[in-house]
Amino acid sequence: MIFTVQIKVMPLKDLLDPQGKAVLGGLENLGINNVTDVRIGKHIDLQIEAENKDAAIATATEAAKKLLANPVMEVYEISVS
Amino acid sequence: MIFTVQIKVMPLKDLLDPQGKAVLGGLENLGINNVTDVRIGKHIDLQIEAENKDAAIATATEAAKKLLANPVMEVYEISVS
Repeated sequence: MIFTVQIKVMPLKDLLDPQGKAVLGGLENLGINNVTDVRIGKHIDLQIEAENKDAAIATATEAAKKLLANPVMEVYEISVS
Repeated sequence: MIFTVQIKVMPLKDLLDPQGKAVLGGLENLGINNVTDVRIGKHIDLQIEAENKDAAIATATEAAKKLLANPVMEVYEISVS
C-alpha cells in the first residue's frame, strides 16, 4: 500500500533564521507591515510503499534522521495523510 | 492579536522536482528502497498581527502572491493554527 507521508523540517527555535529574516524585510518593502516574524523550513512529501501506517512512519523517520534533517540545526515533524 | 499562519509552497504536480529526485536517489543509496516519490517544497511560518483570523489569512495570501510563491511553478496552501 502507498502512504503519503509529510515531513516538516524547521530551523530550531533558538537559532537565527536568515532566510526568514530576509523574507520579513522583503514583506516590509512590499508594504506588508503586520507580519512580526517569519521562519522558513522545508516541506517534504514522500510516497512510501509499506504494509501499514506504522511501517511508513518508521521509514519516514529513518529518512529524516539519515538524510533530510540536520539535528544540530533543525527539528522535524512527521504526519501521514 | 497574533496569529500563527502556515504557508506550504510546493512545486506544481506536473513539473519535475529535481531536488526531490536527488533526495530519492540519496535515500536509495542509503538502502531505503520503499520510497517511490519525493517532492520538496517550502514551509513558511508567519506571525501575523491582525484583528481576526480572516484578516490574518488575507495578509498571508497577499504575502504568498507577492513574494513567497511563484505561480508559474508552485502552488501554495495556507492554514492557521
